[in-house]
Amino acid sequence: MIAEEARLHAAWLPPEAFRALGSRRVLVHGDGMLVDTVLDEVARACARYGGRMWHSPSWDVDVDLVLALRGTDELPSATVQAARAAGEAALAQAGDNAVLGAEGFVLARAGDVTAVLADAPAGLLYGLFHLVRLGAAAFDTTRPAEQHRPALRRRMLNHWDNVAVHPVMGQVERGYAGGSIFWRNGRPRGDLARIREYARLLAACGINAISVNNVNVGRTEARLLTDRLGDVAEIADVLRPYGIRVHLSVTFAAPVVLGGLPNADPVDEAVRAWWAVTTRQVYERIPDFGGYVVKADSEGQPGPFTYGRDHADGANLLADALAPHGGVVHWRAFVYNHHQDWRDRSTDRARAAYDHFVPLDGRFRDNVVLQVKFGPVDFQVREPVSPVLAAMPATRLAVEVQVTQEYTGQQRHVCHLGPWWSEVLRFAPWGPGGRTVADVAAGEAGEGGGLVAVANVGDDLFWTGHPLAQANLYTVGRLAWDPQLDPRAVLDEWIALTFPQSAMADPELVGRTLHEIMDDSWRTYERYTAPLGVGFMVHPGDHYGPDVDGYEYTRWGTYHFADRDGVGVDRSRASGTGFAGQYPPYWAQVYESPERCPDELLLFFHHVPYGHVLHDGSTVIQHIYDTHFAGVEEVAVMRGRWRTLKGLIDPAVYERVEQRLDEQARSATEWRDQTNTYFFRKSGVPDAHGRRIY
Amino acid sequence: MIAEEARLHAAWLPPEAFRALGSRRVLVHGDGMLVDTVLDEVARACARYGGRMWHSPSWDVDVDLVLALRGTDELPSATVQAARAAGEAALAQAGDNAVLGAEGFVLARAGDVTAVLADAPAGLLYGLFHLVRLGAAAFDTTRPAEQHRPALRRRMLNHWDNVAVHPVMGQVERGYAGGSIFWRNGRPRGDLARIREYARLLAACGINAISVNNVNVGRTEARLLTDRLGDVAEIADVLRPYGIRVHLSVTFAAPVVLGGLPNADPVDEAVRAWWAVTTRQVYERIPDFGGYVVKADSEGQPGPFTYGRDHADGANLLADALAPHGGVVHWRAFVYNHHQDWRDRSTDRARAAYDHFVPLDGRFRDNVVLQVKFGPVDFQVREPVSPVLAAMPATRLAVEVQVTQEYTGQQRHVCHLGPWWSEVLRFAPWGPGGRTVADVAAGEAGEGGGLVAVANVGDDLFWTGHPLAQANLYTVGRLAWDPQLDPRAVLDEWIALTFPQSAMADPELVGRTLHEIMDDSWRTYERYTAPLGVGFMVHPGDHYGPDVDGYEYTRWGTYHFADRDGVGVDRSRASGTGFAGQYPPYWAQVYESPERCPDELLLFFHHVPYGHVLHDGSTVIQHIYDTHFAGVEEVAVMRGRWRTLKGLIDPAVYERVEQRLDEQARSATEWRDQTNTYFFRKSGVPDAHGRRIY
Repeated sequence: MIAEEARLHAAWLPPEAFRALGSRRVLVHGDGMLVDTVLDEVARACARYGGRMWHSPSWDVDVDLVLALRGTDELPSATVQAARAAGEAALAQAGDNAVLGAEGFVLARAGDVTAVLADAPAGLLYGLFHLVRLGAAAFDTTRPAEQHRPALRRRMLNHWDNVAVHPVMGQVERGYAGGSIFWRNGRPRGDLARIREYARLLAACGINAISVNNVNVGRTEARLLTDRLGDVAEIADVLRPYGIRVHLSVTFAAPVVLGGLPNADPVDEAVRAWWAVTTRQVYERIPDFGGYVVKADSEGQPGPFTYGRDHADGANLLADALAPHGGVVHWRAFVYNHHQDWRDRSTDRARAAYDHFVPLDGRFRDNVVLQVKFGPVDFQVREPVSPVLAAMPATRLAVEVQVTQEYTGQQRHVCHLGPWWSEVLRFAPWGPGGRTVADVAAGEAGEGGGLVAVANVGDDLFWTGHPLAQANLYTVGRLAWDPQLDPRAVLDEWIALTFPQSAMADPELVGRTLHEIMDDSWRTYERYTAPLGVGFMVHPGDHYGPDVDGYEYTRWGTYHFADRDGVGVDRSRASGTGFAGQYPPYWAQVYESPERCPDELLLFFHHVPYGHVLHDGSTVIQHIYDTHFAGVEEVAVMRGRWRTLKGLIDPAVYERVEQRLDEQARSATEWRDQTNTYFFRKSGVPDAHGRRIY
Repeated sequence: MIAEEARLHAAWLPPEAFRALGSRRVLVHGDGMLVDTVLDEVARACARYGGRMWHSPSWDVDVDLVLALRGTDELPSATVQAARAAGEAALAQAGDNAVLGAEGFVLARAGDVTAVLADAPAGLLYGLFHLVRLGAAAFDTTRPAEQHRPALRRRMLNHWDNVAVHPVMGQVERGYAGGSIFWRNGRPRGDLARIREYARLLAACGINAISVNNVNVGRTEARLLTDRLGDVAEIADVLRPYGIRVHLSVTFAAPVVLGGLPNADPVDEAVRAWWAVTTRQVYERIPDFGGYVVKADSEGQPGPFTYGRDHADGANLLADALAPHGGVVHWRAFVYNHHQDWRDRSTDRARAAYDHFVPLDGRFRDNVVLQVKFGPVDFQVREPVSPVLAAMPATRLAVEVQVTQEYTGQQRHVCHLGPWWSEVLRFAPWGPGGRTVADVAAGEAGEGGGLVAVANVGDDLFWTGHPLAQANLYTVGRLAWDPQLDPRAVLDEWIALTFPQSAMADPELVGRTLHEIMDDSWRTYERYTAPLGVGFMVHPGDHYGPDVDGYEYTRWGTYHFADRDGVGVDRSRASGTGFAGQYPPYWAQVYESPERCPDELLLFFHHVPYGHVLHDGSTVIQHIYDTHFAGVEEVAVMRGRWRTLKGLIDPAVYERVEQRLDEQARSATEWRDQTNTYFFRKSGVPDAHGRRIY
């Protein structure tokens, strides 16, 4: 639904989502900036839906709902006290977990009252949005008590937004939703109301940190750290009431570029002093500043290699400057040779992060978070999980995923990534039953690096270009809060919030149809694009649409080696690049073997003949044909389903999605035909079912 | 040699080139703007080299050289009169050809005097530059008389220069020599001195017409026709003294874009009136304006198809406006479907110009020149000659070639195109011994459309980026003047002028070495790029470097259809697109047959197995390997030869060429390796000589 006043889609917080809450008598108990935010939200909801709100009254009131900070004064009425007691009892049952921490909350029922208790204001805010998700169910008399604490302490978005328009990458690098919500043509965009709406949406799904500029830091962007810090502080002020801290991408060369020093060498005292002073000034202006994000020695960005230092030296330099103020440095592990010779089959980009960083384990400061892309290459629709995540026990590791759909349809295709991220987070790198990627991101004592997601939001009316791509943003926040959530359930949450039942004619049909369209859409996208984990058959540069050989003879280290006999990259220890050996033994052995390797990753790890038989009994070549035909058919089904929603939902949403589905169908057909033709021309093997290959 | 004053390379007119002339006693006889130009040139040469000049004196002078307009007053001394008589005698011998026309001249010796006679001032100017080419040989006592008339009346350059910088194509579309000499950032560049130098160079090689803006006409460029006509007039004023007329690329939509009319329909009286008035205003400002160049209904440019009219309607509209003033419209035949579906093998871009235009033969006005690319596709390193050139006897046809090296190394590679153009111009479309392409361009009675060349000049110090690429510009002018010239001899002319002997230590070595480097360089380039006429294995967009499948699945109609069994495009009548049938019978039969088709065009006309045996006994696949290895070796030889020139020639030229040869070697190696690997992967056939294929 598009809010008339803002001409901006309400996403998962339409007024309707507050109906259950807003029609009740609500007591908010506690003080602080984030409690004020809760008060604002509740007041707005009550004003719209006829409820009533009190803030910490000293007299008895009968209420339906209480949101209260623990350890505050006694609450008024007996019913409220009972509800509170129920919450405390639930907490007591949990034993060691009785401390809710900075962001947790408990929800309990007693009599006719629902209570949300928290130790800190942020917990109350998250509890409020939990109530919004629950809707009327929050007031079910039989509802058992529940506790919620985020599994990951830092749940972060990276915006790849440029301040100045980059001549190639534009205002937002790999952005598919218009311009930046923060910047325009070298200056702040100036729409703080929109940023506030954004913060509210993010808090409602659990995000608590944002970096506001691209990891590729240009000349203009560099200055955000110093003379343009005010632009950052302005954003921080708007995000703060929603519990979101601002982080800044900085250039490692800042002491040279901004400070006029002759070098940026991490062991140079003048450099260290410059970072210390500069960082102190940042905190003077933004006391809750989150820290720095750094892409160093990567794809042309400056870094410690220039001075013969390693990445621990580099990261620790910034960490030392941040430590006195409680900040962290997110240091990206995305370091590889981007001038590779395609003729050289011994160099393997997949190995690079491990080879660069694992030897440094134990050398990073406590406030360094090594930010590791979830896969070893680059956000493909299918990759194995990065072995770095299992190889640095003495380092705080964050898992980086990409919400912006660079390689997954660029928000022109429906590609709901929740199931994929869930697979990644649940993956057990030491073998089935062992610790998971989510455990690594959480850390042994909750001190892991968390989850970082490259944002997909721009100044588009629907935030994300494709209205259904909002679900990816929502889902990444929810999975960062709780990686154990069923992504199908999260999708349904998003659908229920975004397309509220009370506002439509046939809510059940709408909800079911949206779920059917979106739930398996990632696998559909996988089917009609690069097969069996081989990746990177995209059009060079813009990464949209098929170009099977597009990266085959380039410097980027992304090859499939298809010839007339077979396809795939031999990354085994026995005969390939040895990448498979970077995993702990269980997966090293599985991936090493073409027989045991999971089908969906076969071509990532092995070069096999087209006649190689997969676990499902199909040959590789027939699998390519079958999946590509199937993927296009699935898109046709999606379109058909979408058309059944005409007249049932907001026409603006309907039309935008319909247009994009047209493009998705066109593009998927192109993927199918180019891929099938390419492999038919190479293999000479006809389709077993005699379908048309051009 | 770089002129100190201008910081601009002198190209083929260094002062040294005027030594033989400038050290003599010279009489110039006649009047007019172009005679003044001759006077300026001679005076400058005499001032430098100690000669002396007179202009039409009434008293007797003894001279070594006379340049005289025929039909003027009696010449003074007896020796001069004898020389003149010798020239007249030579002309008389030629019988019907005794009229030299607007641009011809005769050169004769009598006693110790050399005479150049012309009917018109331009002839005298061309005679002057002929003397420059001859140098001291012009004064050989035994030199027989010679007559020169241009074979082609219009010898034109098209500049694809944009006035405003195009966001993708830049200041000069497909320009590889820096910015435009005419325009910069939306305004005139303002360096009229450079344009004057350019005009002088062009006159010296025979060019007599220039269009000064890109055939893709943007919003800014459109206005050159009306409110920015002054910018064009300024250029015309500078070119005029060198016998060069200005033409303008216009948009067919001009009546809408500039005139505010509701349409640009050729039968609309308001449209016709607008063109008539606008054109009259152009001639009021530029009385010798050449005419319009139009790219219509091509690659997104507007055209008559919008109004359901054909290209004769469109061209005649402009022709009618130009006719009262003696102008011509160059109407490009480059019309094809640029949204082709690669799956559709029945559509053939090569057929397009013929299919569009041949049915219109006889319907174009006399002052329409249909400008036909020499080949049916797009300036590839090897194509057959366009069949349109043999199929429109009732239409004035111009042959269009590309001096800017879009597909031939982009002035980073040495690729001397003279031999290629010579092959094209000497090609006999009706069969061996018949009329040639040059004859078509000349026309039966000298009224053909001439030769049009897309220019390769920018604001680069060396004019053309690669200093040796100057030779292409020189050569195209010379071949337009006389298509029968041996391109090897023209190359030597260029070498002798540009690297004057008197200025260097070992002129014989320099001349021989340059000839060895350049003469076969087109074939070398052909060897290491796309094989056997198949074309278009270039990187999409920028067209530089290899990308074998780069255009294979695009909308551009440029495919090679390589699969595991074979490669090439079946354009036969029997089983292919039928393009071969567009030729007159002799070549239609030759091209139709895979056995008779010339090897170098085999894959343009036929899809053959890799084992197909060529006329030289090699298989197609072995030919691919052999030529690609050979091409790279030849580049290595080029580099070795160039290095022998170190210290012998201008260091600035030396270094620029050396840098570009480094890039050529790198690029050629990339071409070799990608092409060989691509075809090895597809064919599985190993190299017979066991060389390294990756």
